[in-house]
Amino acid sequence: MKLYDSGRAPNPRRVRVFLAEKGIDLALEQVDIGKLEQKSDAFTAINPYQRVPVLELDDGTLISETVAICRYIEETHPEPPLMGINAIDKAMVEMWQRRMELTLLLPVAFVFRHLHPAMKEMEVPQVAEWGEANRPRAIEQMRFLDAELANRAYIAGERFTIADITAMIALDFCKPSRIEIPDDLPNLSRWYEAVKARPSAQA
Amino acid sequence: MKLYDSGRAPNPRRVRVFLAEKGIDLALEQVDIGKLEQKSDAFTAINPYQRVPVLELDDGTLISETVAICRYIEETHPEPPLMGINAIDKAMVEMWQRRMELTLLLPVAFVFRHLHPAMKEMEVPQVAEWGEANRPRAIEQMRFLDAELANRAYIAGERFTIADITAMIALDFCKPSRIEIPDDLPNLSRWYEAVKARPSAQA
Repeated sequence: MKLYDSGRAPNPRRVRVFLAEKGIDLALEQVDIGKLEQKSDAFTAINPYQRVPVLELDDGTLISETVAICRYIEETHPEPPLMGINAIDKAMVEMWQRRMELTLLLPVAFVFRHLHPAMKEMEVPQVAEWGEANRPRAIEQMRFLDAELANRAYIAGERFTIADITAMIALDFCKPSRIEIPDDLPNLSRWYEAVKARPSAQA
Repeated sequence: MKLYDSGRAPNPRRVRVFLAEKGIDLALEQVDIGKLEQKSDAFTAINPYQRVPVLELDDGTLISETVAICRYIEETHPEPPLMGINAIDKAMVEMWQRRMELTLLLPVAFVFRHLHPAMKEMEVPQVAEWGEANRPRAIEQMRFLDAELANRAYIAGERFTIADITAMIALDFCKPSRIEIPDDLPNLSRWYEAVKARPSAQA
């Protein structure tokens, strides 16, 4: 089993942190996004969508899409559970994972892709107005989360889950996206420090 | 158990089709999006993200997010399986579900939200350039799918799954979004006619 990875990109890191929480050590093969290697013929044969990460199983099966890769790992390595422990909990973790992805990580990524000069060749067309429209949405989501986290330890409840990984990486991605995280959000800040202090955050 | 629903919107319909495939008949409570009822205080207490669908369980648990609702139903009503039957299959179905959501339904929705006059009050700001940028992406995805469907019956393999539901509803949503589905895609067309002919498509 090996993971097609790319050092700085947020999505491969979501999988690396997930693997670290599971205590799984995988072979990593680097795909250099800076050199557009993900658009090469060789990599397009691995993932026609030209995106990392991709998990290659020993039988040659290729799994793309961050959360689908995490699903496979969760099914084959259930401990510790990161995607819920019963029907209701699985649904709540998936609900929060999707909320963190669609209303936090995606807006931060749109700011990066549509406003950062380094993305000019990757994101065609760059729509600056769309980038700007997403900045306040990301901030608004942080304020909402701060209120939510007044009452519980982690995003989806009292247990660390994949929703925390998505949210942590969204906040980490604010720096290259030049989004300032408000400093008047004590609950969000307490949570963020706690998840960043976990050994998996180094992955 | 009841579902907060809204007749014409694509996401509640994804859940209704999923329920119909499972043979589950649920109480539906309508939320009138045209009247912005999803933004009322009463509905915000049900889903702070002000979106339908929401599934309310008999114990009062509220599950938002289409795919999280489907996950709960799949876990509690496994037959017929719509989200995969083993670790690899679950990952492949999730991979295709996400691809259909992120590279087909989302672009079609962006065209609708950012270009349709009826969305002026719902999508603030409407960024016409972003709407236009997504039109060719949706078409490109249809061409890609046509090639994929030359070799298999359904989006994620030989079995109908949640990925087919997402893709069918994305194509149905092309009409209000004023996106013309190319007529030179025979495999996509064969698949689309087959899924639309299922009784669940009436849901």
